[in-house]
Amino acid sequence: MKKTLSKGIDIVIVGAGPAGITAAIYAKQDNRNFRIFESKKTGWFAAVSADSHYFIDGFPGTSGKLSGSELMNSFNSHLKYLNIKVEKKEVVDIKRENKHFKIFLGNGEKITTKTVILATGTVPKRLNVKGEKELFGKGVSNFCTVDGDNFKGKKVVVVGGRNSGAVASIYLHKLGAKVVLVERDECLNAKAKYLKKIYKNKIDYELNTEVIEIIGSSKVEAVSVFNNKTKKENILRCDGVFVYIGLQPNNYLAKKLRLKLTKEGYVKINDRCETSLRGIYAAGDITGNVKQIVVACGQGAVAAYNVNKYLLKS
Amino acid sequence: MKKTLSKGIDIVIVGAGPAGITAAIYAKQDNRNFRIFESKKTGWFAAVSADSHYFIDGFPGTSGKLSGSELMNSFNSHLKYLNIKVEKKEVVDIKRENKHFKIFLGNGEKITTKTVILATGTVPKRLNVKGEKELFGKGVSNFCTVDGDNFKGKKVVVVGGRNSGAVASIYLHKLGAKVVLVERDECLNAKAKYLKKIYKNKIDYELNTEVIEIIGSSKVEAVSVFNNKTKKENILRCDGVFVYIGLQPNNYLAKKLRLKLTKEGYVKINDRCETSLRGIYAAGDITGNVKQIVVACGQGAVAAYNVNKYLLKS
Repeated sequence: MKKTLSKGIDIVIVGAGPAGITAAIYAKQDNRNFRIFESKKTGWFAAVSADSHYFIDGFPGTSGKLSGSELMNSFNSHLKYLNIKVEKKEVVDIKRENKHFKIFLGNGEKITTKTVILATGTVPKRLNVKGEKELFGKGVSNFCTVDGDNFKGKKVVVVGGRNSGAVASIYLHKLGAKVVLVERDECLNAKAKYLKKIYKNKIDYELNTEVIEIIGSSKVEAVSVFNNKTKKENILRCDGVFVYIGLQPNNYLAKKLRLKLTKEGYVKINDRCETSLRGIYAAGDITGNVKQIVVACGQGAVAAYNVNKYLLKS
Repeated sequence: MKKTLSKGIDIVIVGAGPAGITAAIYAKQDNRNFRIFESKKTGWFAAVSADSHYFIDGFPGTSGKLSGSELMNSFNSHLKYLNIKVEKKEVVDIKRENKHFKIFLGNGEKITTKTVILATGTVPKRLNVKGEKELFGKGVSNFCTVDGDNFKGKKVVVVGGRNSGAVASIYLHKLGAKVVLVERDECLNAKAKYLKKIYKNKIDYELNTEVIEIIGSSKVEAVSVFNNKTKKENILRCDGVFVYIGLQPNNYLAKKLRLKLTKEGYVKINDRCETSLRGIYAAGDITGNVKQIVVACGQGAVAAYNVNKYLLKS
């Protein structure tokens, strides 16, 4: 077991998505002594959406020719080139200690740091229905790119008819799953290019339909759905349930630190990426800004720049 | 001469640096009817600093392997790929007209637009000494990458010992000019890696030295300098003067629109990149944010995203 480092760490960056990675690149250039942690085993992109297999249009300089995973790989190469290592460890708690912060890792390790950049992003919203929690990982999933392979030739329900649900449906359909897309609204609210593929591939979908329970003993066997127009309940037999009903701020640590949050639960920052607590900065999707890779990168740079200025003064 | 387009333009983007280019990429994806203008003939990078010949460390995904001009070229390729054309025309005035804005171009063309994204960046600071204005383009320059070629084997004075002045001195030295770097402070305040090159290449420099006049009839012949320690004046014979004493906001249009500015003259924006005038947005260095390419890009995306939301509602 590593010894506790009680001094010498300038910055702990929590989260290695676009914001955290960019912050690390800047911290390295400032010759800062820092560590960067990521709890997810998958990369940030796969973890968020099936879009990883689609091209990223908006990242300048890529000509829209890179897929999400290729862009992620180019970021990871940049880290490797600068000899920055993302540690796959979970930050489970952060406590203020005089003018410093104590970071508690899942493996029991403790670190003292002068500053923190929170780049914890978002997590998928839950349905909050019976069976969801119990069967998570036993057929219930948020990540078709990670778990989809298990459902070739099987029946899956995708919940949510916006972009991410539509893309997941197409992705699972192409993998060979028999997909039913369910949406509680009266129409699918995805981009035209995704809807076209849904129709072309004759993917089943049910509108005005809410999932009210996930059924199964040791694994998913069916979902119970309610049609909010006909007011009728129905059972859809299936082997998997992929939930794509949006994202919510991953604000667990922010709450532990009692940072000021917006009413949606995002971390409030000013134009220097400072939170309400001196020494704690935030960047990327956790701040509730426009959820685009290049925006998160820009904020990561701003956070690291201002952390460096703060450290020079303190 | 083109006819005035009185209707149909959603967005005019002023400036095709990193912020303007990213805004254009997003506007294109939103299927917006927009035009983007750039008054400079050179690209944004060459126009700002000799750093264009150095590697950009901080742009994620490049592994620090791209020079400034290569990165600029990759942005331009992205524009080309999306069939976006930057028009090399100067916006000389913008006037509010009911709920719209009238854009006046240097060639006499007038355009009506619903929204404007100001991405006009910064311009070099002037010395404000006698002879500077009169001899500009006749030996006085801010752009060594543009004008440096004219000074091979000749004597040049570079004014300003921070990063950009140091880099310019090295650049001009390598081109074969005989360089004297003058700095009014008692030391050169450039990055260690640049200073090393100054010393290694034995580039002359004079500290505590202020340029008080640029002398010459039809072209630069000398500068008059004042040593603020010895209080003595001196004449340095030279053929060129390159001024690198910092940047100031290019806020000419912002002032015409009477936008709220910071005390340094940058355009005040909120976290949606809205200025004090409804329908006018700003992004990039003109906002006074951290002057980094990736930060400007992030703001360009935020501005375009919010312009699109505004247009959907209006």
